Amino acid sequence: MDALKQVKFDDQGLIPAIAQDYQTGEILMFAWMNQEALSLTIEKQQAVYYSRSRKKLWFKGEESGHSQLIKEIYSDCDQDVILLKIEQIGGIACHTGRASCFFQKLDNDNWLTTADVIKDPKDIYE
Amino acid sequence: MDALKQVKFDDQGLIPAIAQDYQTGEILMFAWMNQEALSLTIEKQQAVYYSRSRKKLWFKGEESGHSQLIKEIYSDCDQDVILLKIEQIGGIACHTGRASCFFQKLDNDNWLTTADVIKDPKDIYE
Repeated sequence: MDALKQVKFDDQGLIPAIAQDYQTGEILMFAWMNQEALSLTIEKQQAVYYSRSRKKLWFKGEESGHSQLIKEIYSDCDQDVILLKIEQIGGIACHTGRASCFFQKLDNDNWLTTADVIKDPKDIYE
Repeated sequence: MDALKQVKFDDQGLIPAIAQDYQTGEILMFAWMNQEALSLTIEKQQAVYYSRSRKKLWFKGEESGHSQLIKEIYSDCDQDVILLKIEQIGGIACHTGRASCFFQKLDNDNWLTTADVIKDPKDIYE
């Protein structure tokens, strides 16, 4: 794919990816992709990331069922960051069982939890 | 600051930061912060990043005038990504003179430019 060749991966072969709800604009997740993950994301029209901790492809939703359907894909001015506009299946993007991973808000030198757990992770990852 | 101690910087002392328009939800920019940049961002209530290419603090808007006023600061579940909800002064976040850096949309193996230049960069960076 020509489009893939224009994207700049870092010296570890990775590119940051932001997942945003295509309707509400809420930022749901941040993860990394290697070239294969981005290629598969485009091909399957579902988010595929690269897990740096597990050192392997991460087919989002494979275990949890909370896959992310691609609506639009953007890159930034330098083409070294990817933005996915997605439909979040199950309404839960975070492994903590919350809608979004960005649920800790800075308030007077404290990080306050601002979102409820929708589903207990124990019931997500059985 | 206690809140800073809870944030996880990578092995290069950096953390990814996403800047989002606090009203529209549009993702405007992606950049990096070191601990000093995050500390200054909180202190000044204006976005301060760390430029990896220039290897120094980047006071967003210092040259362009397009500073970013902090409305809210979030961290993600692992506390290794920062989300800034900001007011973009001048309505231009991108060095290309566009509102957002994410203006290239994938369309049939091509990256299409989907946003107009609001102000010529030559007139921004004099």
